[in-house]
Amino acid sequence: MAASFLHTLMNPESIAIVGASNNPMKMGTMHALSIIKDGFKGNFYPVHPTEKTVLGFPAYADPKDLPEAPDLAIFVLPSRHLLPLFEAFGKRGTRHAIVITAGFKEIGTEGADLEQQLKDVAHQYGMRFIGPNCMGMINRAVELNTTVMPLTGQAGRLGMISQSGTYVAQTIVHLQKRGIYFSKAVSVGNEADVNIIDVLEYFGEDPHTSAVSMYIETIRDPRRFLDVARKITPRKPVIAQYVGGSEAGGRAGLSHTGAMAGKNYLYDGLFQQAGVIRVESIEDLYAHGWALSTQPPIRGNRIGIITNSGGPGSAIADTCEANGCVMPVFSESLQAKIKPLMPVHAPAGNPVDLTFSMDMAIMTDTIVDLVMQSGEVDGVVIHGAMSTGFMKAVFPHVAHLLPDISLTDLVDQSNRDLSATAAKPFAHGIPMTVSSFFDRDDAYTEAYEDAGVPVLDAPEKAARTMATLIRYKNIRQRTPLAPAGEMDAHPDAVRIIDEAAEKGARTLDEYAAKKLLACYGIPVPEERLATDRDSALAAAEEIGYPVAFKACDPDILHKSDQDLVILDITDAKSAARAYQAIQETAGRTVPVLAARMIRGRRELLAGISWDDQFGHCVAFGAGGVLTEAINDVVYRLAPIDDSDAREMTEEIKTAKLLDGYRGMPAVDRDRLAEILVRLSRIPLVHPQIREIDINPLLLAGAEPVAVDALVILKEPAGLK
Amino acid sequence: MAASFLHTLMNPESIAIVGASNNPMKMGTMHALSIIKDGFKGNFYPVHPTEKTVLGFPAYADPKDLPEAPDLAIFVLPSRHLLPLFEAFGKRGTRHAIVITAGFKEIGTEGADLEQQLKDVAHQYGMRFIGPNCMGMINRAVELNTTVMPLTGQAGRLGMISQSGTYVAQTIVHLQKRGIYFSKAVSVGNEADVNIIDVLEYFGEDPHTSAVSMYIETIRDPRRFLDVARKITPRKPVIAQYVGGSEAGGRAGLSHTGAMAGKNYLYDGLFQQAGVIRVESIEDLYAHGWALSTQPPIRGNRIGIITNSGGPGSAIADTCEANGCVMPVFSESLQAKIKPLMPVHAPAGNPVDLTFSMDMAIMTDTIVDLVMQSGEVDGVVIHGAMSTGFMKAVFPHVAHLLPDISLTDLVDQSNRDLSATAAKPFAHGIPMTVSSFFDRDDAYTEAYEDAGVPVLDAPEKAARTMATLIRYKNIRQRTPLAPAGEMDAHPDAVRIIDEAAEKGARTLDEYAAKKLLACYGIPVPEERLATDRDSALAAAEEIGYPVAFKACDPDILHKSDQDLVILDITDAKSAARAYQAIQETAGRTVPVLAARMIRGRRELLAGISWDDQFGHCVAFGAGGVLTEAINDVVYRLAPIDDSDAREMTEEIKTAKLLDGYRGMPAVDRDRLAEILVRLSRIPLVHPQIREIDINPLLLAGAEPVAVDALVILKEPAGLK
Repeated sequence: MAASFLHTLMNPESIAIVGASNNPMKMGTMHALSIIKDGFKGNFYPVHPTEKTVLGFPAYADPKDLPEAPDLAIFVLPSRHLLPLFEAFGKRGTRHAIVITAGFKEIGTEGADLEQQLKDVAHQYGMRFIGPNCMGMINRAVELNTTVMPLTGQAGRLGMISQSGTYVAQTIVHLQKRGIYFSKAVSVGNEADVNIIDVLEYFGEDPHTSAVSMYIETIRDPRRFLDVARKITPRKPVIAQYVGGSEAGGRAGLSHTGAMAGKNYLYDGLFQQAGVIRVESIEDLYAHGWALSTQPPIRGNRIGIITNSGGPGSAIADTCEANGCVMPVFSESLQAKIKPLMPVHAPAGNPVDLTFSMDMAIMTDTIVDLVMQSGEVDGVVIHGAMSTGFMKAVFPHVAHLLPDISLTDLVDQSNRDLSATAAKPFAHGIPMTVSSFFDRDDAYTEAYEDAGVPVLDAPEKAARTMATLIRYKNIRQRTPLAPAGEMDAHPDAVRIIDEAAEKGARTLDEYAAKKLLACYGIPVPEERLATDRDSALAAAEEIGYPVAFKACDPDILHKSDQDLVILDITDAKSAARAYQAIQETAGRTVPVLAARMIRGRRELLAGISWDDQFGHCVAFGAGGVLTEAINDVVYRLAPIDDSDAREMTEEIKTAKLLDGYRGMPAVDRDRLAEILVRLSRIPLVHPQIREIDINPLLLAGAEPVAVDALVILKEPAGLK
Repeated sequence: MAASFLHTLMNPESIAIVGASNNPMKMGTMHALSIIKDGFKGNFYPVHPTEKTVLGFPAYADPKDLPEAPDLAIFVLPSRHLLPLFEAFGKRGTRHAIVITAGFKEIGTEGADLEQQLKDVAHQYGMRFIGPNCMGMINRAVELNTTVMPLTGQAGRLGMISQSGTYVAQTIVHLQKRGIYFSKAVSVGNEADVNIIDVLEYFGEDPHTSAVSMYIETIRDPRRFLDVARKITPRKPVIAQYVGGSEAGGRAGLSHTGAMAGKNYLYDGLFQQAGVIRVESIEDLYAHGWALSTQPPIRGNRIGIITNSGGPGSAIADTCEANGCVMPVFSESLQAKIKPLMPVHAPAGNPVDLTFSMDMAIMTDTIVDLVMQSGEVDGVVIHGAMSTGFMKAVFPHVAHLLPDISLTDLVDQSNRDLSATAAKPFAHGIPMTVSSFFDRDDAYTEAYEDAGVPVLDAPEKAARTMATLIRYKNIRQRTPLAPAGEMDAHPDAVRIIDEAAEKGARTLDEYAAKKLLACYGIPVPEERLATDRDSALAAAEEIGYPVAFKACDPDILHKSDQDLVILDITDAKSAARAYQAIQETAGRTVPVLAARMIRGRRELLAGISWDDQFGHCVAFGAGGVLTEAINDVVYRLAPIDDSDAREMTEEIKTAKLLDGYRGMPAVDRDRLAEILVRLSRIPLVHPQIREIDINPLLLAGAEPVAVDALVILKEPAGLK
């Protein structure tokens, strides 16, 4: 297994730490205390220049004096002292490390040099390490915590990977108060060696981890991320927050993990392609990840809503619907079973709204059972379960009326055994999320959370969490990736590119570009290139009127915006006029492309883009006048397969244009997908190509045709 | 003042309650306890059929026995007993009431009848009342709480209006834990008498209320809402969550407040027009409302970010940028002041990232002062201020190292006076929001919240809250509403409609529709209606080629999808062919409209829609092939003024199409606004018109032209 070294790194039998002392307010000490106090059962060796014992353990002045080569060494000392000690561990035989120490790439050139030296030393001794500039890791399977914050609560099933240490360590208390627990968590820091993809690969195989949450500011190797994630997501959900698409966010990201901020839309495409669910906030990353890690898989998108308050019930319904869920009206027979349990006239049709009611067992047990057993829903969202929290809230007012009863008595009274209640989703195999305005002060919230049922502090959040379970269902069920078929270089295409390269051209003209596309089966209009008036007229005659004339010169961009395209030429006289007009507008002699007139009201865009980080990507979206106006373009790493292509066509905002639509036929989706797949492979057979821009890819009836195209070549080697 | 009765209702000097007893677990008792225990200082009269005293107060069996006519009567008894008692209070002279009791319109016909009777009795005695089916109200100015939940915490400056009782009462503890406090709050229930607009009008004048949050499932009188809200929003922020746009949400909403669910896009338009900020969750409704009620007004959109953790700093920057904020790079001189306070190499350019640091005073005082004084930002978002919460979290690990120090000592040590820290935004007049993963367990969170500085439990939330302050700035600064100019009915238009009405027609044909539009200065192409071939050819000649021919018959919709429109006719021969083709396609003799050919690549839509709840609305958006594909249409209640019209044109997703764009000129915005304003007034002078659909409103260069139009008339009175 590729990431097996991470298994050793996260399951060490012996740990040394450098930087811990007996001063409890020092970072190094706090990291050490987490190891000692939170349950690590192996050997523990503090390394300290002067102290004889540290935190009650014998201390060693030099790694060479250690009684064994520790499986893991942790470094929390100033960066200027790091290298000699790191190397000493290498010499002693330690092969795994965590470098908490900051002051590397994130601070600039000087730090980057130091980081390179660290990598060199590690390489020399075959050491793998997390960091530098990280917060360490947590492995609840062996109760090992190397972060600065004490562990709380139980072990969970959510694996957390983060490029910010805060989201692994400083949020521990925050998460415990929300009943969210990790199985394992890794703060990767600067990723000098171990990166988020390594950890993802490891979590993908980890039996203790049922879902993975990733906080991401950059993906250093998008192609490997795609390969690794795509293998995991069909069987284990992966959810990610990507931050850094903005300029200021990039500034912040740059500064603290030394990462290069990438492009938002490319990350969007990468996540879609990889089956990774993207969320927009750390709250969703945690809560939705938690729900994915604990709830049974959802089988459909039908949601039942059970509430004792109309407002939250409406908000849940509204939010569910806006996020792709369906709230079926319950059958007469199901409603007939529910109605006797509720106040007269209270609605049981979904939402089930019991109105303000304190008989919680009916709502949280009887009705939940009925709805989950009905076969009419795939998931349940419930609002308003409460007991002790409510009692505590009202006690100050009622206390003097109940002189013989203490708050504890009252709480105990309302505190029935909720273990079966909280187990409903697991017993029925139907996922559930809970909305409650009471936190763990309330016995219901506590019982649900401790059983692994997500409790959200607002109805909209419970609904959105449920919607994320459905998003994962769609990923689980998507067409498996087809093995990429081969596509050989076409000799004509090779010649076209070679000729351009010989001339030192950076772009292919429209004629050459479309010839190249045609080599790979991408439909283009019948056309002829004419360098004088007579051959233009002859070409028009051969093609058959009506035709279009266009100036054809690689130096002219946006032809149609400059009146260098004349459409709907119906006869020779008009053709002669058109030829002349183009020459006059251009102000010099330009070749003219005579093309069969293709008609269509729907303009798409397809292309290949280049990004230094992502490499070649394939783009698809709204074309023509819309391209810049609504920026409705989606991306995938090239090459793509048929299912990727179909997802792209469904993902654009104007997807409805592709359906049968106001008298226009539905696009030939097989053909469209084939075009995108073929297009995506062109840069593989012609790596000299940097970008391809087909705009518009016009829908002539149901058939996409590349009506205009541009190919940009890479700078010759040596230039840039 | 229109809503002065609400002042009396919410500031009573004496209150009677029906339905309270000495059983502390009864709803009525809990409402009474809230009044007694939470600080009401006036006279209190329980009315009870048998008890001599209730909750220590002398009880009265009959309202007529009360020593005075109470200013306010509260009813918490079963609906079947309500009316006689309600009437008895009317007779006794009480003029204000709250009907908590449920079982009215929300349960169906029978309940609606009872609700009507209640209204009749109220009318008979001149009584105004809140409810039925509500949770009561809170007025912190006189510490009056008539809800079921005990008040907690201090008085705030946020006025809450809710169509769900839960959001006024059951969330009290939830809100207190987040440091959010109401000035006044009203649960309006079924709105049989007092509705959300009345309360809004009252809160608009209330000196204790600085911002208003509204939870809305329906607005029964959108026009009055617009009038009232538009007067308030330039000087006091109003923020609203509207739930009920979805089908299931409507089902839930219907069931519990007896309200008719309205249409999402119409509410969007209404809120925009009224200057009401719409949010999508109850969490935002509370938190953003709270920030608007406490923070100094923001003067621009430049945000400074101060953090001690890179991840949250990036997330704040990213979220701010995505929501219209600007994060300027700090000047060299400001950075020079900040850098000496930070670790070497730590970035001070905005975000200021101190990295993990426990010297909080530098971050929360010194640097906040520097940034706020700099003149370089209009608002500040800060992440990571913490003290006692952190100490409590780490104490379990360090306790044994500090045998002489208790947790209390440690907390006290780190618990410096934060009153000046928390007052920074007020001292500098620069709004601030705080992101913290520590709740009120931490002294910082508590100090900020109690001073009125919003603390959010995630960086994205702190950023979005700040963005809402900027949204309000834009509302505060928008062009004041211009008084609506008059527009008189044009005699030709009157004749066109009368003729159609005489024929019993429900629609005007394209020719008549455009004639009508032209009467009001809306540009249409020059055109002639022809009923035979010769007149069609003559018309084309008169207009001048090229022309377009269209079938013109009110029964034919979507002409262009049926080949009943022929464009670009360049000569008489083509015109003859075109005339013939249209007749053949139609399969019968149809009149033909000959029109000057108008060219343009940008198709818009403008229109008038009709909704039984909202009345006539004006619509504007993307036209032609895009109309249904991306649903990019915005609405306003008709009529609109010039500033409304300009906002509509800026609000559509494809707004960029209106700018100078790929060789096309920018639209004439004055002309476009004028067209929308004039269009919006047509239904006022012709109330017989139900709908107008101009699609496309083509941009011929910079000039919008109504190239196709349809007018639908209302059903004649008596029908429908």
